[in-house]
Amino acid sequence: MALFGRKQAPVAAEPEPEPDPTLPGAPAPQANGLRSVSAHRDFLLSKVQPLMPFGMRLLDAWGLSLCEDLVADGDLPPLPEAESDGYAVIALDVRDAAVGTRVQLSVRGDVQKVGSAVPVYAGQPMPPGADAVLPLAQVRREGQELSLLAPVVTGEHVRPTGIDAAMGEVLIHAGKQLDARAIGLLAGAGFDKVFCRPRPRIVVLAVGEQLADDAPASMAERRRDAASHMVAAAAKADGAQVWRESVAGTTPDDVAEVVSDQLIRADLMVICGGTAGGRDSLVGRSLKSLGQTDFAEVAMEPGGLQGFGIIGQDEVPVVMLPADPLAAYVAFELFAHPLIRTLMGARDMALSSVDCRLTMDVSGEAGLMQVVAGVITRDAQQWSVTPLDFAQGSLTTLVDADALIVLPAELGTIAAGAVVTCWLLDRD
Amino acid sequence: MALFGRKQAPVAAEPEPEPDPTLPGAPAPQANGLRSVSAHRDFLLSKVQPLMPFGMRLLDAWGLSLCEDLVADGDLPPLPEAESDGYAVIALDVRDAAVGTRVQLSVRGDVQKVGSAVPVYAGQPMPPGADAVLPLAQVRREGQELSLLAPVVTGEHVRPTGIDAAMGEVLIHAGKQLDARAIGLLAGAGFDKVFCRPRPRIVVLAVGEQLADDAPASMAERRRDAASHMVAAAAKADGAQVWRESVAGTTPDDVAEVVSDQLIRADLMVICGGTAGGRDSLVGRSLKSLGQTDFAEVAMEPGGLQGFGIIGQDEVPVVMLPADPLAAYVAFELFAHPLIRTLMGARDMALSSVDCRLTMDVSGEAGLMQVVAGVITRDAQQWSVTPLDFAQGSLTTLVDADALIVLPAELGTIAAGAVVTCWLLDRD
Repeated sequence: MALFGRKQAPVAAEPEPEPDPTLPGAPAPQANGLRSVSAHRDFLLSKVQPLMPFGMRLLDAWGLSLCEDLVADGDLPPLPEAESDGYAVIALDVRDAAVGTRVQLSVRGDVQKVGSAVPVYAGQPMPPGADAVLPLAQVRREGQELSLLAPVVTGEHVRPTGIDAAMGEVLIHAGKQLDARAIGLLAGAGFDKVFCRPRPRIVVLAVGEQLADDAPASMAERRRDAASHMVAAAAKADGAQVWRESVAGTTPDDVAEVVSDQLIRADLMVICGGTAGGRDSLVGRSLKSLGQTDFAEVAMEPGGLQGFGIIGQDEVPVVMLPADPLAAYVAFELFAHPLIRTLMGARDMALSSVDCRLTMDVSGEAGLMQVVAGVITRDAQQWSVTPLDFAQGSLTTLVDADALIVLPAELGTIAAGAVVTCWLLDRD
Repeated sequence: MALFGRKQAPVAAEPEPEPDPTLPGAPAPQANGLRSVSAHRDFLLSKVQPLMPFGMRLLDAWGLSLCEDLVADGDLPPLPEAESDGYAVIALDVRDAAVGTRVQLSVRGDVQKVGSAVPVYAGQPMPPGADAVLPLAQVRREGQELSLLAPVVTGEHVRPTGIDAAMGEVLIHAGKQLDARAIGLLAGAGFDKVFCRPRPRIVVLAVGEQLADDAPASMAERRRDAASHMVAAAAKADGAQVWRESVAGTTPDDVAEVVSDQLIRADLMVICGGTAGGRDSLVGRSLKSLGQTDFAEVAMEPGGLQGFGIIGQDEVPVVMLPADPLAAYVAFELFAHPLIRTLMGARDMALSSVDCRLTMDVSGEAGLMQVVAGVITRDAQQWSVTPLDFAQGSLTTLVDADALIVLPAELGTIAAGAVVTCWLLDRD
């Protein structure tokens, strides 16, 4: 609105030619007109780079990917240390002890003298002069005297200097996702800050135009919430920092406004719903002014149209998932999860998997990769998986599952007894 | 210090009898003078109660234990909905179609008329009148016409009302740890807040008196940091909110002061180091004024003295771990992890485990439960575990492992080929 004529209406300029809204480089469809799952995933991965690393406090780096080789700047441990709780001794003192014989040792403050022993605990640097440790189970203590139940030789139950790492040795290689044990090793080597890629910041946006048109708002809202909440929680399980937002409006401008507002805090955006119709859908139209997009029917079941884009000034990747909660969940694991792992700089892109024997036939459709929920049972050596029928309820079935069974597109029906790949769903 | 005589020195009162510093109910030792691992764990668990639950936003409840049965207040889904992307039709229209024949269907906005089809996507409520869905793969679309490649029967590819849950059905039972899929189901059922036990708040305290006495401060500091950082990160992996602090002082009063300060924000305290000597150790003496403690040699290797207490006005449980990083890590998994799980109200107390075949002999000591690091390999059906030798470096070996092999106390040496229980270390 012009105030006191100081602002002028913009001069109607020659309309600029609209930029091509199509994300370049998309793979060609297969003979059946669909895009293969792997081609789609590879295309998405080719558009996303790991986040920039920075130095962070060691404990904050838990779960993140290290971006440098970390090298020991001294021997670890720096001094020989006891391996067990017990008594530090001079091994020569007990060289003649056979199992069953007893050698008396005094418990004193040092082992400078022959025949003396000093209490030590595991991890404690060895007292000067001592060269072996008698573990508690190898002695009986009576007052200030010990009786020996078994001999030790020089160096026994002692961790020598540098056994964990010699000076200059790489402790943890770049690319490693830091778990509790790696954090412990690095702390023990004196690192208080490390260079890691941060947790990706992910905005999950629920959009529900068509659902809202088809049913009373309360029901539509519920269904819409299922997918966006599930996906937001799955992104949390992946180690991301997650915000979930929803769009109340039903025009492309409404959606574009919320997307623009949220881009500032997003390393990745995930939009649930509103994409049926691809580029002409509510979401598709809303993104036209923001960047380039790709829509494709991918050869999977459950599946449907998969959308992707690179939008905004910072070229933020956006994954558009189907509105159906089950289809959205499977698509998240197939496509968004590897993108999150890429942003984190992690080595493994996919969920961890295990091969299991099918307990019953699964009827599939040749040409589509089938993803079926399953329950894994295991005995000593045998891992088996029993498929669950999504026709018994898509969400409740998914809740009961502990794995997703992946049936390759090449196969149709698979017979009981076949070995199939199962993705484990227990990461959260 | 008395200022201007207004403060008086306290009158020397009759000294109160010191309260018994021993935590009651401790189990008796075994014949070998040690306490069994299970008796120690059960004793600790008997002293800890789950945290009080409260209502929290659904997405904040990810990873937490639900404390109420949540019941569907309507049928889920509320209306029949499409199971696949495709076209909603009246099944009667296509009843005569055999595979290969083609039935022409118009793509119109409703299915009120015989011979019409409406595009639908998975999860969308069925349009009025339609009773089946032709998935995309079963039709070929040419302009506004469809040619049918296979027939459908009434109800096919349609999720009926209530298939996920009927009104009144329990969706998620109390005690369930909410994962992404459970969150999705609850969101889809209209829950925006749920009643869960919160993440435990854990203070990890590094204490290192004796290490500091035995070696230059910088080296001692390192070793001390290893255990406390490792344990703090492992508590994070368990879903706790974690703070790590360290005590610079070396007197019981120094330690007691820091412990008292930290108790206010702790549901559980974990102290690393300073416990060698039990009740007479630096930490043992510091806790005397704060509450009751228990110290015991537990029949495990790596092991050593395990300490526990209930301290402060709020009766906060405190776990005292050995100073050695390896021993501390194993003790954390054996004793602190189940306590954290209990505080969270989780069903499973221990790490998830798997049975594996040993690839080589492991020499153990009868009477002590041995915990050995291992690497699991698996082919289609065979899971095997190769023990790693802690003598090759305790921390680096632990970093290389993906499992802890648990060898029961009853056995001595175990031969290659035996099936043993392995705890999986990949939760973080």
